[in-house]
Amino acid sequence: MTRSSVAADAVPPCFDETFTALLTELFRWRRDVRRFRRDPVHAETIEELVRLATLAPSVGHSQPWRFVSVEDAGRRKAIIGNFNRCNEAALATFDGEEAERYARLKLAGLCEAPVHLAVFCDKAPVAGRGLGRMTMPETLAYSVVGAVQNLALAARARGLGVGWVSILDPSDIATILDVPAEWQFVSYLCIGQPEEEHLDPELERHGWQDRLPQSAVLHRR
Amino acid sequence: MTRSSVAADAVPPCFDETFTALLTELFRWRRDVRRFRRDPVHAETIEELVRLATLAPSVGHSQPWRFVSVEDAGRRKAIIGNFNRCNEAALATFDGEEAERYARLKLAGLCEAPVHLAVFCDKAPVAGRGLGRMTMPETLAYSVVGAVQNLALAARARGLGVGWVSILDPSDIATILDVPAEWQFVSYLCIGQPEEEHLDPELERHGWQDRLPQSAVLHRR
Repeated sequence: MTRSSVAADAVPPCFDETFTALLTELFRWRRDVRRFRRDPVHAETIEELVRLATLAPSVGHSQPWRFVSVEDAGRRKAIIGNFNRCNEAALATFDGEEAERYARLKLAGLCEAPVHLAVFCDKAPVAGRGLGRMTMPETLAYSVVGAVQNLALAARARGLGVGWVSILDPSDIATILDVPAEWQFVSYLCIGQPEEEHLDPELERHGWQDRLPQSAVLHRR
Repeated sequence: MTRSSVAADAVPPCFDETFTALLTELFRWRRDVRRFRRDPVHAETIEELVRLATLAPSVGHSQPWRFVSVEDAGRRKAIIGNFNRCNEAALATFDGEEAERYARLKLAGLCEAPVHLAVFCDKAPVAGRGLGRMTMPETLAYSVVGAVQNLALAARARGLGVGWVSILDPSDIATILDVPAEWQFVSYLCIGQPEEEHLDPELERHGWQDRLPQSAVLHRR
């Protein structure tokens, strides 16, 4: 991670139009990736991505993010088994042509991705002393999600793809990874070199769902 | 928003080391802001920020984010009243020196920020057809949080500050803003020019909570 000197820290850098335009391109080219090459990723790169993730805001500065690098082959196999079971159950909720289309979608890259990173939220963090979350305890998990978004953007800037797998049973994942009882499962990330680059989301590309217009999203009161 | 031509869209831009270093600086200099100048912000800027926010990933491409620009003075007053009541209740949970320290913190910039943006999650979106969230319905709200993080980064790159207010009663906010019953309140954002720039989070700066070491955050299995 870039470290500025103390003097330089007093003055923020200039985020000029060139940077802002490239930041927009980064948002556009960040994709949820499910098609990975098997090339390994350096452990230091993952450490750097986690460091950048934790620059996200957190409620009461509680920093409840807990990252688990899943390296053990047996644990990975159990995770993949869990995904397969959950995905079959999800497929069973669709009928006819929709079920056929669902079955053709590739929804995770668990078998190919060189890096598996499970992300949890410590529901009882000491840090922050409870500040800011009395009426909305869910903001703890939300803090973790902001960190994941930082991580996905930082990864894409480095040519790496990130895929968020949510078709998993949260309590099974906590058991498989043997984490403390107060850690809530938030996200399972596959990370690696993407096989391909494209601008349109997988589910748009494969005819599942188009983008909504801005008028559906921004309202006034 | 930058729009590339179709031909240019086929090839991703080069995110070089200069960009990546500046992206790291953007993560570092993005702060949760509570001290705003009253200078107005153009409506087009807010529209652009919302457009960039919605480039975040969403579960099943469900795009459940719903942004409400709160412009009516009466509604803003009701929101501020809600914050004051919730903040007094939170203060009452602390004792002695800790309560004094809590009372001195500035936890929102609702009175000064020129833009108020409430962010909701449509819990029953048509888009996405339920894909990806059968075992983890909370990923709908998580998708909205990723969009908020995009928005905060894009705002900071444009010299704007964003403050996330969570000391609010979610059901009261939905009532005050008269939104559909299926919209879940996720986040209330104050947006405007920050009064000051600094690298350390407000709560670190004012002695409430320090940063955790990486060893507390990254684990192996």
